[in-house]
Amino acid sequence: MIIVLKPNATKQQRAHVLERIKALGLKPMISEGTERTIIGVIGPEDKLRAQPLEVIPGVEKVMPVLKPYKLVSREFKPQDSVININGIEVGGKRLVIMAGPCSVENRAMLVQTAKLVKAAGAHLLRGGAFKPRTSPYAFQGLGEEGLKLLRDVGKATGLSVVTELLDCRDVGLVEKYADVIQIGARNMQNFELLKEVGLARKPVLLKRGLSATINEFLLAAEYILAQGNFNVILCERGIRTFDTATRFTLDLSAVPVIKKLSHLPIVVDPSHATGAWDLVAPMAKAAVACGADGLIIEVHPDPEVALSDGPQSLLPKNFAKLVKEVRKVAHAVGRTV
Amino acid sequence: MIIVLKPNATKQQRAHVLERIKALGLKPMISEGTERTIIGVIGPEDKLRAQPLEVIPGVEKVMPVLKPYKLVSREFKPQDSVININGIEVGGKRLVIMAGPCSVENRAMLVQTAKLVKAAGAHLLRGGAFKPRTSPYAFQGLGEEGLKLLRDVGKATGLSVVTELLDCRDVGLVEKYADVIQIGARNMQNFELLKEVGLARKPVLLKRGLSATINEFLLAAEYILAQGNFNVILCERGIRTFDTATRFTLDLSAVPVIKKLSHLPIVVDPSHATGAWDLVAPMAKAAVACGADGLIIEVHPDPEVALSDGPQSLLPKNFAKLVKEVRKVAHAVGRTV
Amino acid sequence: MIIVLKPNATKQQRAHVLERIKALGLKPMISEGTERTIIGVIGPEDKLRAQPLEVIPGVEKVMPVLKPYKLVSREFKPQDSVININGIEVGGKRLVIMAGPCSVENRAMLVQTAKLVKAAGAHLLRGGAFKPRTSPYAFQGLGEEGLKLLRDVGKATGLSVVTELLDCRDVGLVEKYADVIQIGARNMQNFELLKEVGLARKPVLLKRGLSATINEFLLAAEYILAQGNFNVILCERGIRTFDTATRFTLDLSAVPVIKKLSHLPIVVDPSHATGAWDLVAPMAKAAVACGADGLIIEVHPDPEVALSDGPQSLLPKNFAKLVKEVRKVAHAVGRTV
Amino acid sequence: MIIVLKPNATKQQRAHVLERIKALGLKPMISEGTERTIIGVIGPEDKLRAQPLEVIPGVEKVMPVLKPYKLVSREFKPQDSVININGIEVGGKRLVIMAGPCSVENRAMLVQTAKLVKAAGAHLLRGGAFKPRTSPYAFQGLGEEGLKLLRDVGKATGLSVVTELLDCRDVGLVEKYADVIQIGARNMQNFELLKEVGLARKPVLLKRGLSATINEFLLAAEYILAQGNFNVILCERGIRTFDTATRFTLDLSAVPVIKKLSHLPIVVDPSHATGAWDLVAPMAKAAVACGADGLIIEVHPDPEVALSDGPQSLLPKNFAKLVKEVRKVAHAVGRTV
Repeated sequence: MIIVLKPNATKQQRAHVLERIKALGLKPMISEGTERTIIGVIGPEDKLRAQPLEVIPGVEKVMPVLKPYKLVSREFKPQDSVININGIEVGGKRLVIMAGPCSVENRAMLVQTAKLVKAAGAHLLRGGAFKPRTSPYAFQGLGEEGLKLLRDVGKATGLSVVTELLDCRDVGLVEKYADVIQIGARNMQNFELLKEVGLARKPVLLKRGLSATINEFLLAAEYILAQGNFNVILCERGIRTFDTATRFTLDLSAVPVIKKLSHLPIVVDPSHATGAWDLVAPMAKAAVACGADGLIIEVHPDPEVALSDGPQSLLPKNFAKLVKEVRKVAHAVGRTV
Repeated sequence: MIIVLKPNATKQQRAHVLERIKALGLKPMISEGTERTIIGVIGPEDKLRAQPLEVIPGVEKVMPVLKPYKLVSREFKPQDSVININGIEVGGKRLVIMAGPCSVENRAMLVQTAKLVKAAGAHLLRGGAFKPRTSPYAFQGLGEEGLKLLRDVGKATGLSVVTELLDCRDVGLVEKYADVIQIGARNMQNFELLKEVGLARKPVLLKRGLSATINEFLLAAEYILAQGNFNVILCERGIRTFDTATRFTLDLSAVPVIKKLSHLPIVVDPSHATGAWDLVAPMAKAAVACGADGLIIEVHPDPEVALSDGPQSLLPKNFAKLVKEVRKVAHAVGRTV
Repeated sequence: MIIVLKPNATKQQRAHVLERIKALGLKPMISEGTERTIIGVIGPEDKLRAQPLEVIPGVEKVMPVLKPYKLVSREFKPQDSVININGIEVGGKRLVIMAGPCSVENRAMLVQTAKLVKAAGAHLLRGGAFKPRTSPYAFQGLGEEGLKLLRDVGKATGLSVVTELLDCRDVGLVEKYADVIQIGARNMQNFELLKEVGLARKPVLLKRGLSATINEFLLAAEYILAQGNFNVILCERGIRTFDTATRFTLDLSAVPVIKKLSHLPIVVDPSHATGAWDLVAPMAKAAVACGADGLIIEVHPDPEVALSDGPQSLLPKNFAKLVKEVRKVAHAVGRTV
Repeated sequence: MIIVLKPNATKQQRAHVLERIKALGLKPMISEGTERTIIGVIGPEDKLRAQPLEVIPGVEKVMPVLKPYKLVSREFKPQDSVININGIEVGGKRLVIMAGPCSVENRAMLVQTAKLVKAAGAHLLRGGAFKPRTSPYAFQGLGEEGLKLLRDVGKATGLSVVTELLDCRDVGLVEKYADVIQIGARNMQNFELLKEVGLARKPVLLKRGLSATINEFLLAAEYILAQGNFNVILCERGIRTFDTATRFTLDLSAVPVIKKLSHLPIVVDPSHATGAWDLVAPMAKAAVACGADGLIIEVHPDPEVALSDGPQSLLPKNFAKLVKEVRKVAHAVGRTV
């Protein structure tokens, strides 16, 4: 931790800062510059991070030196983490493709979609049983019935399933039916939910919040790892910016940035990011080109009648085309599908 | 709802759009422009809103005409709502001032703070027992013990209390001890939590999400009203922007915008918005000048040792000064404190 | 400047960094932490700022300690600057109010507007002769004819005039007719234009760029002062954010932030920030409440037929009402109008 | 244009709106909904766009139906534009790669860089002679001397050159030495400069502004085409968002979005967008994967001593590696380098 004193800080103020640091068992080192005095603190930064040093009179600013997360960091674990989902590995050389409808609507459509995405090359089936909707008047999902459908159809087609958890009270239920528990963007900082899935025995797909910095995203993952669940897959799904040409702005540079900072795998969701089906394929290819470990894509047999997110859902035939194109890009960057 | 067709839409595509509209029991009206064909739909927009019409081939764009919320709107209730909290009215001529520490830390500091803010003119005591913290290693609050302290100290000083609810499982607990249940910014789209407080019998203070549009903010409130709880107080607390000079960017124009759109009262939190104690007073005055119905302010007897948000906490003496200054501005705009 | 080394930096890399610092005539001070080595540099930071130290192998990050601007800073000049415009002072106890149409359209409307805003209490007449328009097909202003009209009408009504300069080639022309030269938001980082007005003998009204940080805003002003023109008035006019409820998001906390960092006066433009005439009065009052030194407001005798920015223009009668209301708020915060 | 009336609009207000429309020679079509009256306007939208209809009492909102640009649109020209730069085509099957130092510093480094990037596969040499710098105290470029060096070195190595124009007064000078005139992000809405290059006889590389919407970006290009210069290459170079992990946020979805809306070619600048040399290669590959027509990359033989943008400059050997990798991705998406 670096503490910069104001140019007019008094001796008393300076002595007070040094005292506070020593009281925490830490050792300050003073550098007298021509324009400012700087105090460096040797020792664990955690103790200081909890102290509101900025508020001490005479202090101009406080600059942390270390990252605030540990378990998710490359420093803690230099090798890439590979998460195993019933034999499907996420984070290795092979990309993982998750596909399916936004919401589980009924058995027929789910069976149809699952068969088609499996045939096209998907490894996991996605589908929402609990739906977080901006409006209280929109379709809220089928609940447990949807979870059962997902599990049944997943088993029948040989696809593991990933589905969203919204409520701490449902963690047991979702854990029972799902192979991967998804935490959605709007719940990325629902810390109680993060703690619950940290105690679950299933891998977690953690989506980045709409306005979460990379730092906050990794700290949200840290909540899960800190409870003992190291099987976390990160997911970039677009951030909120001034630009309204797409629903969100897909922040693909987050992929190589996170690869530098963390050992966790990261997949990309071009469907929610763009909100437009005809932008999904180009952005899926871009995601793979810059190092994503997989994709999660919305597919619906008849997007025109989808109960949610129709505009961004791919027809199965377009999904099959996308997988073929993505495979070529994957090979170009030394990966497989 | 207005549906704009692409310039090259075929007759068949156009017929298909009309068919879909009629199938919903709605009546399309066609305007043939020189460059585009436009279809206006007469009748309730809700039915159409759930339909992904954009995905239909030949459709260029779909523009909603009506607002997606109802119960919170001025059209539904033209008069200002006034929320009664044990005799304190929020939304009337008199401003409400809520003050207290970020976190409940212990009885002594809470008693001290409560007495001082009461003496300075505060109407409600704020304090967190459950704390949503970005890092899993930061102080997470005292839990039920904190709630009890809050209630006891509130009773002793004659202040009603407002405190945050984080978890659906704690709604009964918080409802038991608090006079106003706060939903924090990070939970503004935790829809399960919104539904729960919609069923609670206590008023709700709903904070705007970090990156929530006004539309999404009002829809979050709509979730609560839709469950039957009309006692909702909105709170602007800063949005996330590119600017890092302040912790968030206080969006004060949200106050008059919301006053136009909704009957609900709105208060402003300059402490969390700015993150700096010396910016709290000017922004509190600005909030009142543009029509806010109240303020929520962090006060700590010794910010230097606060367990959370020290840098933005006011000393009690500075809070007292703020109330005096705010009172003058309130009078200037025809309000009282 | 603080240089943080990577945990795995080699001795050679470290020696190289120290050598680079010494070669610039600066003195490094090394602090060996438990997790990182930190190098503080004693001496003028400017020399280092120009060096891309981050790129040296073994360096993790580089943190500047000092502000990058000088002449505009409070450290350079602790007292508030007061700019004199033909006897009207900007930055003193009395607020300045600039008002007038977005564009100069013709003599009749300009005379009418000038008389009415003068009668209502405005101190300066604003009006655009050169208009920066998003579309090439929109009205681009009357050019020199507009400048002449402004000067004539200003003289006739006893109002000094402020008008925008768009092109380095027109600086002499605008300087000849205007009392204050405005640099618009879109030109805040048109550095050639900044240098030109830095050489002009008239005060400059510098508007904040749509997405300029406070730091960049002050550096833009520094460009002008660095050429010798210290008569700069800053203007907050809304920043671009995700929120579309208003045209831009008025960042009022910029006012007290800038008052801390700089001695320059700052005025607020609620017309361009909100884009809606009925939001202008509340935001004008808020601006004054948080410490703005003045306001710049669009007024048009018939907004319905305005050639630009009609939706945000006030009718003269509403402007007169605004001035009365603002005067009350000004008194409440110890200022006058 | 669609005009939505307020639910409580009076007959008189409604009649006034219709009158205004007819006075412009346009034909209104009225749709009476159950909750709102909607007026569609048949005929050219341009005339209405200039009218501030929102300001008319009784009008709730005005929704444009058509795009505000023409010449840059796919509707105007369905086929991709291919710009020819001395035999190098931009916008065809073959990608164009522009590379070179941020600033022209001296002949030796420019010759060295030019030879190395040419050998690695670059088609154009980039380098700044006029530099827009945030601080007035930073290196501002060599001016005409830099332009001469660029031309000489370009000729000697057989590379066409692209360089930035900052000032309307220098357009002749830059046109004389450069093969492509660059308009930088900070000048994207310097409309006078856009008009000047619209009259120039050299192709223009137009960079997207830091906070420009796609709409504003295309309107800026429209300014150039409207003056007669159709040889415009667009460039996505990162937008300003809340995220500080990268210098800007590279908005790659802008590439397929613009491909839908416009016939102009678009290249991507991963160097300025990320600000970090080790993120350049992954983002360059992603740009090509989603359809970019080329790349512009900063390369410096010794980034540690670069006078500007060192941290994001690639060493020539890393640039050569990047070209090889990009070539593979290009083939995977049916392009060549």
